[in-house]
Amino acid sequence: MSTTITVGIVGYGNLGKGVEKAIKQNPDLQLEAIFTRRAPENVASGTKMVHISEIEKYKGIIDVLILCGGSATDLPEQGPQFAAMFNTVDSFDTHAKIPEYFAQVDAVARQAGTVSVISTGWDPGLFSLNRMLAEAVLPEGKEYTFWGKGVSQGHSDAIRRIKGVKNGVQYTIPSQDAVESVRAGKDPVLSTRDKHLRQCFVVAEEGADLKQIEHEIVSMPNYFADYDTEVNFISEEELKANHSAMPHGGLVFRSGVTGEGTKQIIEFGLKLGSNPEFTSSVLVAYARAAYKLSKEGQAGAKTVFDIPFGLLSPKTPEQLRKELL
Amino acid sequence: MSTTITVGIVGYGNLGKGVEKAIKQNPDLQLEAIFTRRAPENVASGTKMVHISEIEKYKGIIDVLILCGGSATDLPEQGPQFAAMFNTVDSFDTHAKIPEYFAQVDAVARQAGTVSVISTGWDPGLFSLNRMLAEAVLPEGKEYTFWGKGVSQGHSDAIRRIKGVKNGVQYTIPSQDAVESVRAGKDPVLSTRDKHLRQCFVVAEEGADLKQIEHEIVSMPNYFADYDTEVNFISEEELKANHSAMPHGGLVFRSGVTGEGTKQIIEFGLKLGSNPEFTSSVLVAYARAAYKLSKEGQAGAKTVFDIPFGLLSPKTPEQLRKELL
Repeated sequence: MSTTITVGIVGYGNLGKGVEKAIKQNPDLQLEAIFTRRAPENVASGTKMVHISEIEKYKGIIDVLILCGGSATDLPEQGPQFAAMFNTVDSFDTHAKIPEYFAQVDAVARQAGTVSVISTGWDPGLFSLNRMLAEAVLPEGKEYTFWGKGVSQGHSDAIRRIKGVKNGVQYTIPSQDAVESVRAGKDPVLSTRDKHLRQCFVVAEEGADLKQIEHEIVSMPNYFADYDTEVNFISEEELKANHSAMPHGGLVFRSGVTGEGTKQIIEFGLKLGSNPEFTSSVLVAYARAAYKLSKEGQAGAKTVFDIPFGLLSPKTPEQLRKELL
Repeated sequence: MSTTITVGIVGYGNLGKGVEKAIKQNPDLQLEAIFTRRAPENVASGTKMVHISEIEKYKGIIDVLILCGGSATDLPEQGPQFAAMFNTVDSFDTHAKIPEYFAQVDAVARQAGTVSVISTGWDPGLFSLNRMLAEAVLPEGKEYTFWGKGVSQGHSDAIRRIKGVKNGVQYTIPSQDAVESVRAGKDPVLSTRDKHLRQCFVVAEEGADLKQIEHEIVSMPNYFADYDTEVNFISEEELKANHSAMPHGGLVFRSGVTGEGTKQIIEFGLKLGSNPEFTSSVLVAYARAAYKLSKEGQAGAKTVFDIPFGLLSPKTPEQLRKELL
């Protein structure tokens, strides 16, 4: 295809930076500008930086706008706002609020004649797709999701709020025993404690009471009390050197039966060196789909469930049938 | 949804029997009849059996016809023939001939205003979907497919054609070392021999030359010569008792990079107690999609790449967003 899809990015945190890199891996996409709330001249980047207040000028120039803000405060505002002007893609991930967010964006996008792909990435996103597919193929069965090994920002933040803690990183780790039991088709009943371990690397302030910090972590309700939690005290240098990456991943299983009790297991897994870079790569593939849907004359909010996989690829349907079916 | 989708089955081998069972797991689908080339009164089944020559009478009654014949001779004829009368779903799996088969079925279905989902199942089918998705998300990367542990009919047939062999079953087994190396992100270069082992269970005729049989198996070109092959001689009773199931499965990996060399791995795996029953379950989910596409007013041949996952589910889009995103 000789078509080039012109893309804009809103927000230049980890996700925005990941999208900037991912676009370079996709020759049919071209990055026009990154929109920021900061003073553009103060942001270092190889891409044209534009203040967010100027974004309306890019209407008709940008084919798809990739929204890289957070789900707590950025997207609930920016999703509907920018769907009025552009095709958009986002990674809105507050599961409980997805129906409400969908309705808001859908109303605006239908009115504007734009396409907005919401809540993509890997969970929600690729994990959701696999749960749905597996449930449709194996209606009688049990679903298991494991997360990790990966950094949980929420849990890391919770550690850092404890008195005497200077810095900290928390890894969520799936229990290998639990995973193997599911993989072997044993359909185990798993408690919260059975499924995941929590591993903490903590930098304490000088003179802090380490016993007390450890106690506060392992007994913290919601975050740690229901898990086996390991606490390791390390130096700030060690934390920077060994725990600055943002790995993540996980596994989605469906363990089902067909016929007269025949066991059938579907497994989907991700092992990600960088959570934000992978999420960015998914956003970019769905930006291509948003563009194609819009060219087909569609409008409104869409989720991963509404979009045929073929639209994610730069290849033509003929190529896909020949090379990948 | 209160809609009931009325389904017919063509062919009553392993696949047809699997579809009959799978429909029972899906309350929104109802099986009207099974069409056979045999004398219907001689076929034992709990379902109404109808001779294939009567099928035209079911036009307007059956919403979707699931074609359960083989790819070698049945489907090339039946696919276009029945697409002229019904929405259809099939598992045509001769990879090299898919483009040609698609074109033939597409022409008939467009003319007739029907929808025909071709080449679904797990490979082609779910494996193709995962290869495509992973390539779209991680354009820089390497793909690996492993099959098994599972029975290969082609290889089992090849063994049974050897002089002195009474019966035999062949299992394709992925090399655990190769799988672990891919899973660990090592991007190995794997030869045919590195990827899969072949395990044979052979029943010899009385007085047959076992050494000669083993030699003929392990040195057979295309089938065994390029693999490490294990040959076990067993009794007919043992074969019937322990090797009558049709397990299969496999793994599809994409090992890719994002940004500046960040490793990202996507894995999809199936562990199937019965290959035909699982394929049948996939056919049934796609029958639901064929029905919905037809209701939307679409016509023509479709593959798994053209169909949004949401159409595979009996749930409404609202339910899917709320429960599964």
